[in-house]
Order: sequence, then structure tokens, then C-alpha cells
Amino acid sequence: MSLTSLKEQVFEANLALPRHNLVTFTWGNVSAIDRASGRVAIKPSGVDYDVMTVDDIVVVDLESGRVVEGSKKPSSDTATHLALYRAFETIGGIVHTHSRHATIWAQSGLDLPAWGTTHADYFYGKIPCTRLMTAQEIARDYEHNTGEVIIKTFRSRDISPAAVPAVLVNAHGPFAWGSDADNAVHNAVVLEEVAYMGIFSRQLTPGIGDMQQVLLDKHYLRKHGANAYYGQ
Amino acid sequence: MSLTSLKEQVFEANLALPRHNLVTFTWGNVSAIDRASGRVAIKPSGVDYDVMTVDDIVVVDLESGRVVEGSKKPSSDTATHLALYRAFETIGGIVHTHSRHATIWAQSGLDLPAWGTTHADYFYGKIPCTRLMTAQEIARDYEHNTGEVIIKTFRSRDISPAAVPAVLVNAHGPFAWGSDADNAVHNAVVLEEVAYMGIFSRQLTPGIGDMQQVLLDKHYLRKHGANAYYGQ
Amino acid sequence: MSLTSLKEQVFEANLALPRHNLVTFTWGNVSAIDRASGRVAIKPSGVDYDVMTVDDIVVVDLESGRVVEGSKKPSSDTATHLALYRAFETIGGIVHTHSRHATIWAQSGLDLPAWGTTHADYFYGKIPCTRLMTAQEIARDYEHNTGEVIIKTFRSRDISPAAVPAVLVNAHGPFAWGSDADNAVHNAVVLEEVAYMGIFSRQLTPGIGDMQQVLLDKHYLRKHGANAYYGQ
Amino acid sequence: MSLTSLKEQVFEANLALPRHNLVTFTWGNVSAIDRASGRVAIKPSGVDYDVMTVDDIVVVDLESGRVVEGSKKPSSDTATHLALYRAFETIGGIVHTHSRHATIWAQSGLDLPAWGTTHADYFYGKIPCTRLMTAQEIARDYEHNTGEVIIKTFRSRDISPAAVPAVLVNAHGPFAWGSDADNAVHNAVVLEEVAYMGIFSRQLTPGIGDMQQVLLDKHYLRKHGANAYYGQ
Repeated sequence: MSLTSLKEQVFEANLALPRHNLVTFTWGNVSAIDRASGRVAIKPSGVDYDVMTVDDIVVVDLESGRVVEGSKKPSSDTATHLALYRAFETIGGIVHTHSRHATIWAQSGLDLPAWGTTHADYFYGKIPCTRLMTAQEIARDYEHNTGEVIIKTFRSRDISPAAVPAVLVNAHGPFAWGSDADNAVHNAVVLEEVAYMGIFSRQLTPGIGDMQQVLLDKHYLRKHGANAYYGQ
Repeated sequence: MSLTSLKEQVFEANLALPRHNLVTFTWGNVSAIDRASGRVAIKPSGVDYDVMTVDDIVVVDLESGRVVEGSKKPSSDTATHLALYRAFETIGGIVHTHSRHATIWAQSGLDLPAWGTTHADYFYGKIPCTRLMTAQEIARDYEHNTGEVIIKTFRSRDISPAAVPAVLVNAHGPFAWGSDADNAVHNAVVLEEVAYMGIFSRQLTPGIGDMQQVLLDKHYLRKHGANAYYGQ
Repeated sequence: MSLTSLKEQVFEANLALPRHNLVTFTWGNVSAIDRASGRVAIKPSGVDYDVMTVDDIVVVDLESGRVVEGSKKPSSDTATHLALYRAFETIGGIVHTHSRHATIWAQSGLDLPAWGTTHADYFYGKIPCTRLMTAQEIARDYEHNTGEVIIKTFRSRDISPAAVPAVLVNAHGPFAWGSDADNAVHNAVVLEEVAYMGIFSRQLTPGIGDMQQVLLDKHYLRKHGANAYYGQ
Repeated sequence: MSLTSLKEQVFEANLALPRHNLVTFTWGNVSAIDRASGRVAIKPSGVDYDVMTVDDIVVVDLESGRVVEGSKKPSSDTATHLALYRAFETIGGIVHTHSRHATIWAQSGLDLPAWGTTHADYFYGKIPCTRLMTAQEIARDYEHNTGEVIIKTFRSRDISPAAVPAVLVNAHGPFAWGSDADNAVHNAVVLEEVAYMGIFSRQLTPGIGDMQQVLLDKHYLRKHGANAYYGQ
């Protein structure tokens, strides 16, 4: 993919955040990667969505994190994005927001269980909440370590980032990802939706158990993988 | 009714879903039936509401389920719709959505009781939640069996689908129906409204009992049947 | 006031309901009275807000309830409005809606206590919820009896309808009133606002007591009566 | 700063309140101060946002509270604003609203704890709720005393108004402030956002403790003060 296309994809995906009511002010950012060239395009730091242009999108190098194109500073969360791209090799786009209901779960320090087929259509099991970060992880390279704690969460709990394309960072907010920037935003919207519904499903049925594994399998697998056939 | 009118009715009713905030992305579908010809028009699979045209609407045969008009694939939920049309002979339109608050009740596995006249004006008693489906029902002909479990719910609990034109599919979401596609959407909107209010009525008054039967009778019967006289 | 002005006032006030998100479909109606002539103008029955014209507004006689102008049927709730106008002689306009959060309180059968100055600025004390109606009251002249039970609630609890311009009808929804149609809608908006906030104030502080009487006095009296001086 | 600029800043900031859904009707007001001249510009009393012009903005003297420019009456809350400007010497703008979720916390009489980085990015610790006012404080110079009780809350609890630019007035609603009118509105929006999320974080995890101090430090300090570097 050309850098121009990559930047356009990232620009459009960032504009989709306010349209989907996922952000207040500039509280969100989307990036995408071109694996062939090892280039990552990302939202510039602190720029409002309604004045941002495609030329403001910053391109950084996956390995070094150095800016290779663009005059703006890349988002302060860039180091988190880069850590995830390095560890999760199948993903092509990442979104970070403080969307209200996903953030509520993150602030509560709780995994978001799979309680219905809306969840199962996109996430193959619960969306994990990371552990609290240590004082050391926070003090130094905080944004990079935010990525590391996400990666450790997926590895230690043996969760596939391809099958569960989102995480709740404890006391912070969600990251979601996908095959490209647009797909990552799509998953961020679904996450927000199931986060909202989960709050009240749990209110109606305290102690509600996970959904049936067979139903989770059915819904996830009819949309993903070799035997997918589904569309509403 | 001509197939052209049927398709137009279904097209318009599908467009009403995002207008009433009942859907995210393509998470919903509306169908309608022409009983005389045994034809069912339904939303195409996976097509966005803002690009869909009336020509995208697919027509299938009630008995065989085969496509008789249209080049798109019918909604994956078509088998559920057809099962309902076969069993509930008075209905002319069906809507499936993942509307937030009805889905919350569905995810919680709870019937939605009649707690006020808003409910009683449209639904003659509680809106049932189906039982969990068996592994077998899920593994094979899942969408058809979703319809079957709805039908069994109404029959085993002796509920009239004409008097209670909606259901909550356990761990999934709502289906609503009506005399035609437009009326089905109308009922889906009311369902979402009473589902919202029910969550918080129950929060304010835990253990809240059903509304008075005489008031339920009054409100339902002043709007439906031979002695109807009501309009706000 | 001329009947034309009265009808225009009522027409505009009805259109304000969807603008303030107080209604779904046609679930609401506004009326106003001209005390001099004993004429009440009210929304026609079952007419959508977006097609209604000022000529659709129906004028009825306060005492007899007979239509004196207009070709449409008056709202089915007309008998409730008339009962209130007869008993509450200071009021000039009435609104009935099923606005979500006021209706939640009504469905829960609870008074809405004064928990803050937003409430105190408009309502001088708790907004009462009526008792359940008897089978007899429901069976015959139901809409008129809905008015009667509201009136009895205010009289038996010694609440002034001028100082508390709203009520929650048990298992049904709110009525609000005011000096004219516009003021009644204003109070209906405030009611919905405090109903929303009340649900969650009570969630945060279960068993929360009424606000201080001195603060209630201060806020209500600085906006109402001889010594009023307030404006934000 | 010229008085004209000050008035324009205040005018624009007042119009931002409905745009950010912080107000119903005229339930809000913004002011700003020019420290050099000791002039405070503030919203006029009771004027609707959609008819207000920049000429309606009233200018008052910080010390005397007397109107020095403008034909309208200044907001009834002017005495509260002036008290805050006198005591909190670093602030340049103040906002008062009855925004729903901040008001819910105020009505509940509870501090809003720091439960996540959204909060920590703007408020360096919990947002205090004032104590109840005494009958005497309410009876005389109520609006001035509202300011005094806010000031006492910050002093007695040793909270810096620069580091925590908002307060919840018990049984009333929020005030927020900032370097200028625009920044004050920004903080009011963030307050409403964290107030919303806090209600449900507490619902999901009753008894939830404050966030880690190291994380609070990190987020607040990376955006404020000498070592700030952050932008999303």
C-alpha cells in the first residue's frame, strides 16, 4: 500500500470516531500499518478532528518509532500502538478511545464477559481487562509499557488478539484493533455497544454467567474463518 | 399486493430502523409477506442501510425459502422469519434488531413484564424470553430453530402472537412483528421504549409486581379489537 | 384570547414535545384553556406531529366537553384535561406525555422527591404519584377518573397544583401544567430532567433524604411569588 | 484584554454550553475576568442562548459587583462567580451548569473520586462536594455564600483550585473554572463525562477504591506543569 493510501485510510478512520460518538474533544486516535514497508500512520497529537487534514497524519517507523513523514508530533499514544503492532502480527489497524461504556468497564477493572450474540459475532470470548501497572512501568516508558501490559495479558491468559480484537486497559480505557484502520473502528463501535449492554444485563441479572459456549462458537464461527456465511 | 409494493414496503421499513435508532451498522432486518402469493420480501445480507436500494430487496418463497427475485443473498436470518410466518398466520411483517435495551433483557434471559400503560397499549401481557437453545438446535439449522424456539415459547405458554407481537430471544435479541412491515417496526420501537423504562422501573422498585390486570385490559382493549376508541 | 390564538398556542406547544424529546410517535398531547370563554383547545387524536396543522387543533367546551370547533376527534385524554381545568382553576395549559424518566417513576409507583435546586426552582416539594385506580374507576369513564384521582391526590395530600405543577399517574405517566401551554411544556421538560437525575441520585445514595427545607424555600421563592428575583 | 474581547470570549463560551449538551433552557452561565482592569463579563439573567447577542453580555466590577457595561441584569449567580474570582486568583473563567451527571453527584452529596485516567488528565484528585449550607448562609446573601462555601471546601481540605478546577455544590450542581472562559467550559465538559462514567463504574464495582496515586500523578503531570508532553 502507498503511504498516501495509508494516510488517507487513517485520516478517514479518525474522522469516523466522532461520527460514532466514540470521542469527546481529541480523546481518541487511530493508526494503521503497512507491513511491507514497516510504516505506521497515526493521528497527530492534540489536533481537533474538525480541523485535521490528511496532511496532518504522521508516519512513523515501526521499529525505531521515528517520524518519517509529517510535520506534526505523532499522538502521545504512539508507543502503545507500535508495541501492539510488533507483538500482534496479524493486525493492520488500532484504535484508542475513552468511549464512555468501555471506559466504565476499564475503570471498574473488570473483564467484559460474552453475554450475547452481539458480542459473539465479533469477539470470541470475554474482553480482558489488564492488570494494574506497577509504579515502575508507569514511571518510565509509560506508553510503551501500556502496550506491554496488554500483550502480557493476551499471552498469559492465552487469548488470541485475532479472535478478541480489543482490550480494556485498567483504570484507563479501551484499545481495539482489526485488519485495517476501518475494521479497528468497527470493532471499537461494537465494543462500546456490548459494554453498554453489559452494564445493564448485569444489573438485571446479578451474577449472570457467561453465555453458552456452543452459542458463542456458532455466532463467532459463522462470521469468521473458513466456514463463515453470515450477514444480517 | 404486487411484489413491487411489497419490496417498497420492506425497503422503507428497513430504512426506518436507523431513523429510530434501533440498529448499529447492519444489525437488523425487516421482512413482509404477501399471503396470497406466498412471497416474502426481506433485506439483503450485509448491505448497509445508506447504500441499499429497493432493487436490493430479495424475494423468497414462503415454503421452499428459495430466492424468486433479486440478485443479492437474503438476510442470514431469513429462515427465522419464514418459520414465524408459517406458524403465526396473522402476521404480515417481521423485524429483527439488536436494539440496546430489548437486547439487554434478552441477554439477561428475562421476560419483560407489563409495568405500565405504554406497554399495555401495544402488548397484552409480558413479552416472553425464549429458553436457551440446545446444542443440537444450535449446531444444525440454527436460524430455522431460532424461529422454532420462538414458536414453542408462544405455544407452550399459551401466548397469542397477535396480542403480544414481540419476543426476546435468549442471549440474542428481539424480534417484533405486526400486520405489515411498518407496523412491525412500530412495535419494535415500542418494545425498545418499554425495555428501557423497565430496566429503571425495576431499579427504583426491586421486586415490582405486574401492573393491575384491569388496567392492562383497559389500555390494550381500548386500542385493539372491536371496541377500540383510543388515540393520543 | 381569541380562539385562533389559543389554537396557535396549543399547536406550537404540541410541536415542542418532539423537539424536547418528550414523545415517541404521538404519545403526548398539550391543551390550553381560555377561561373567559370556557374553551379548551387540544391536540387531535392520533395525528402525527409532523403532519399536524393548526387547523387540526380541536376546540371543546370546558363544561360539556363537546367539540365546538374542528373536524378531527379530540385527544382521547381530553376528559382528563377537562377534569383538571375544572378543579385547578389557576392553570392555563396541560401536557401529557410518556416521557421516559417521568414514566419510569410513574411505573414504579413512587413520588419523585425534591433532591436538588433544579427541582426546587420549579416544584415546591415532591411530585406526587397517584394511588392505583380501582377496577370501577378504570371500567367506566376511565379518562375522566384519571383526572379525578389526580385531583384527589392533590387535595388529600394538601398539595397546591400551582406550587407543584405536575403529577405522576401510577403505572401510566406524567401530566404537567402551567400558566399556559408553553409554560406547561416547560414544566414537563423540567420534570423529565429531575426524574432522570433522581433515578441516579438514589442509586448513588440509597435512602437519600429530602433536600433541606430552607434550601427548597430559597430556590422556589426566589423564582416565584412577590419576592422573585432570579434568572440564570 | 479589551472589554470587547472579554465579552466576545464570554459570549462564545456561553453558546458552547448547549452545543456540549450541558444545559437545558437557560440553566447555565459562563463568565471571564480581565485581571488587569478588574472587570468580569457574564451572561445576562434569564436570556435564552438562541437569542442572546454579544451586546447582552454584562460587565461588572470585581470588587463592588456593580454593572459597568450592559443594559441587562447580570446572571443571578454573579455573586458566586465574583467570590470565586476574588479567592482563586489564578482562574480566568467560570462556568455554572446543571449538567445532568455532575448534578446527580451534587444531589447525592458525594465527592466524585478519581477512578480513571480521563479524570486524571484534568483533575488532580477527587472533585469535592461542598457541605450543606446553614440556614443563615441560605437566608442572606445566598449566592455570595455559595461562593464562600466552595472556597472553604477547597481551603479546609487543602485542595488547589488550579489542580482541581471544579466543585459540586451540595444539592445544587457543578461549577467549573479554568484559565479563561473557553478552558472553563472544557473542564465542565470533562467533569460531566467523568461524572457519567463514575456512576456506572461504582455500579459495576461497589466500594471501588481510588485509582493508583502513581497513575494519577503520571496522567495529571504529563499534561500539566513544567514537564507536560501529552496530546492524544
